Amino acid sequence: MKQYDLIVIGTGPAGHHGAVQAAKLGKSVAVVETRSIGGACIHTGTIPSKTIREAVLQLYRFKQWGFYGAGREGTGKFSIEHLVQRLGQVIRSETAVYDDQFRRNGVAILNGLASFVNPHVIRVANEEGQADFATQYVLIATGTRPAHNDSIPFDGAAIFDSDAVVNLPMLPEVLTIVGGGVVGVEYGCMAAAMGIEVTMIERESRMLDFVDDQIVEALAYHMRSHGVTFRHGEEALEVIKTSEGKVCVKLKSNEEVWSDALLYAVGRQGNTESLNLAAAGVKADERGRLSVNEAFQTAVPHIYAAGDVIGFPSLASVSMEQGRLAACHAFRQPTSCTPHLFPYGIYSIPEISFVGKTERQLTEEGVPYEVGLANYREIARGQIIGDTSGLLKLLFHRETRRLLGVHIIGEGATELIHIGQTALAFEGTVEFFMSTVFNYPTLAECYKVAALDAFNRLNYPRRDPTVRSDKSP
Amino acid sequence: MKQYDLIVIGTGPAGHHGAVQAAKLGKSVAVVETRSIGGACIHTGTIPSKTIREAVLQLYRFKQWGFYGAGREGTGKFSIEHLVQRLGQVIRSETAVYDDQFRRNGVAILNGLASFVNPHVIRVANEEGQADFATQYVLIATGTRPAHNDSIPFDGAAIFDSDAVVNLPMLPEVLTIVGGGVVGVEYGCMAAAMGIEVTMIERESRMLDFVDDQIVEALAYHMRSHGVTFRHGEEALEVIKTSEGKVCVKLKSNEEVWSDALLYAVGRQGNTESLNLAAAGVKADERGRLSVNEAFQTAVPHIYAAGDVIGFPSLASVSMEQGRLAACHAFRQPTSCTPHLFPYGIYSIPEISFVGKTERQLTEEGVPYEVGLANYREIARGQIIGDTSGLLKLLFHRETRRLLGVHIIGEGATELIHIGQTALAFEGTVEFFMSTVFNYPTLAECYKVAALDAFNRLNYPRRDPTVRSDKSP
Repeated sequence: MKQYDLIVIGTGPAGHHGAVQAAKLGKSVAVVETRSIGGACIHTGTIPSKTIREAVLQLYRFKQWGFYGAGREGTGKFSIEHLVQRLGQVIRSETAVYDDQFRRNGVAILNGLASFVNPHVIRVANEEGQADFATQYVLIATGTRPAHNDSIPFDGAAIFDSDAVVNLPMLPEVLTIVGGGVVGVEYGCMAAAMGIEVTMIERESRMLDFVDDQIVEALAYHMRSHGVTFRHGEEALEVIKTSEGKVCVKLKSNEEVWSDALLYAVGRQGNTESLNLAAAGVKADERGRLSVNEAFQTAVPHIYAAGDVIGFPSLASVSMEQGRLAACHAFRQPTSCTPHLFPYGIYSIPEISFVGKTERQLTEEGVPYEVGLANYREIARGQIIGDTSGLLKLLFHRETRRLLGVHIIGEGATELIHIGQTALAFEGTVEFFMSTVFNYPTLAECYKVAALDAFNRLNYPRRDPTVRSDKSP
Repeated sequence: MKQYDLIVIGTGPAGHHGAVQAAKLGKSVAVVETRSIGGACIHTGTIPSKTIREAVLQLYRFKQWGFYGAGREGTGKFSIEHLVQRLGQVIRSETAVYDDQFRRNGVAILNGLASFVNPHVIRVANEEGQADFATQYVLIATGTRPAHNDSIPFDGAAIFDSDAVVNLPMLPEVLTIVGGGVVGVEYGCMAAAMGIEVTMIERESRMLDFVDDQIVEALAYHMRSHGVTFRHGEEALEVIKTSEGKVCVKLKSNEEVWSDALLYAVGRQGNTESLNLAAAGVKADERGRLSVNEAFQTAVPHIYAAGDVIGFPSLASVSMEQGRLAACHAFRQPTSCTPHLFPYGIYSIPEISFVGKTERQLTEEGVPYEVGLANYREIARGQIIGDTSGLLKLLFHRETRRLLGVHIIGEGATELIHIGQTALAFEGTVEFFMSTVFNYPTLAECYKVAALDAFNRLNYPRRDPTVRSDKSP
């Protein structure tokens, strides 16, 4: 039986980075992939949705600029052929990057479905047959797929999940989205920017509960101004497709929401059922997900898991790092992991990104902090691009004046966050941003404006609360 | 006679920031402005050109994406009314910001033309008369205007300077640009992106001699691929407007360049001739510019100068800082000035930005360094936006592994540079970028890719050159 130091199951961001890291440490590594290299990230998730989003944004901005003809018949529509072509190009390019890195680092690629024979033997089965491979370590990086619900009659056209978006036969005019998580919000924003009438149904009282309140409020405001209707604290009990091709959602409140189509985006299901986990002594939860410790070990120490299959935050960027850290831990390679510096990016319209603490966290932890705000509309670049809803918020420690968190909504947020992330890594203070010269006109100037705002608040005279004024009762 | 602590002549970025800084220090301050508040930056230079550029870019990208109708008749043209409206809005907003800050800080605004009566008295003359004001300090921040040449028959239509671009009656199909500096390059790129056939005539053997060689090469490559013709090492001796409305430039090499219009962009002239500098004991050079020491003092210590009127780099961002530093120096306010962290931004298409040292500087200074490169096309975000020419270059010290310089050409360069600028400020190393988690997909990931590239080069085994191999002669 062929023997490896590490077998990685899945070739998405976590599996890819874990495998390449182990190979770079001189280990013999194989990856098992049942579909195409790159996983959901490249083929059905991140890459397709971000490419479609870019097309939507270009069209949206073009309309905003009021160029001749935009919005009239024959214009302002996508060339679907061109979009599909662009998407294919991006997917091919990204797949080639992964494939090339596997080959250059001598990682074996095993095509087929992986399952455990025992904790140290993996069986790979495909149309041609099956083979068993022994391994010292295993990294499970099989990712997730959209969760389904038996009460929802999916048909991939009128009632679909996010994987099916790329293959939709036509765009609806009225769309219902069930689920106010990242996937629902991202597609909701795209649909609204395309002029589709969107209703979002979400069980919680707000969207994106891990995001700063003020940022979510700004997003909700922007989405509402684009015609999105929210049904918060509401549950979809039943979904019916009528003979006229309409979709009716019956809500817990007894109300009904009607539309041309429905996107079901309530969570994702871990791809673990075919792994025969029982043979390895590992157990998944009811959503098919695996629990790991901080070294990404499952209950069986030589079996690691990383990426979406272990749950939050399910971001490609973080999954890559998890895969790398798991491989380093397995082969005793010292690493420095700085999860407090991980940035979060949500490709809503406008986009959101943050790093460090939220106000809520600081309040819970009893950390004294002050806020500095900059609105895009206050700075020249914001005026030039016409982004009047953008907002950058900096949080500083009241005493040390160190940066604690950065929260951005607006164009370029996912790029801009890295300026704050770098300052956070080096424990930069409010004075750092104040004394920095930024290119003019740029959105980056928001850091300076927000720092000045925070500085004024930090220096606002506060009366010692233990000293009572004469007039107090 | 009314007495001030500081009189600032000019209200562009340098004058504005100098005046507000002095006022914040509790000083009595007046600004003198003969035109509109904000100077050339807001009214004829930076803001108008960057707003037009944004419109050009939107149109250009729209065509790249191949949307229906783009490029056909009736589409793909600017709504000039909309652009003028957007521009007016940006200018009003920026002027209001300046005006508001003057008023909130109690800065007096004196409308009229300023001139020295003696080193401590400024005369302000306007249509209603004139008045003299005494002052302890003076800050000259009068900026520049496009330099003219008596041999060029400017008419503001077929033969024009950059101030006249906003008011052009129509766009030429064929354009000659004399001057390969920032202004000539920025307008040359915009014109080429609009489909105008451009010839650039430049005396030097290359454009933008303060920019990294590789970046300028990439820009030249991109401009040529958009149909720009370069005539380097060439001089315009004579410009003739024919009766058919064509423009002929006779070159030193005896060749002729014909076009519909000519943009003359050879340097800028300091606005100092009306200041009666002789009465203050200050002298301007032949281009109307003032020399200052590192504290921004002219030969007369209580008279400061800042901004474009003192020459290179003539960037709004740097001018603001110069004005602020001059005011702080005058009123003995300690400052920390970090000119090695000033970013440079050139709004060419694709845009350019850099911070820190160039390879040429490091070679001249004998600093051992290593290069790390990332092409936009290597990363997912570059593929998604279709920017295949973008390039990010990091320079690290070979021994300390510290970041020494960042050079970027490509979309978002002027924003992205601030990530590197922050790392430079905190003396970040190649390992910092390698261990950072970046949002995916973003252009910021180029920092990680370039750092990995540099890391491989830094670790490439080098044989000690003093140890000769057996086979050497």
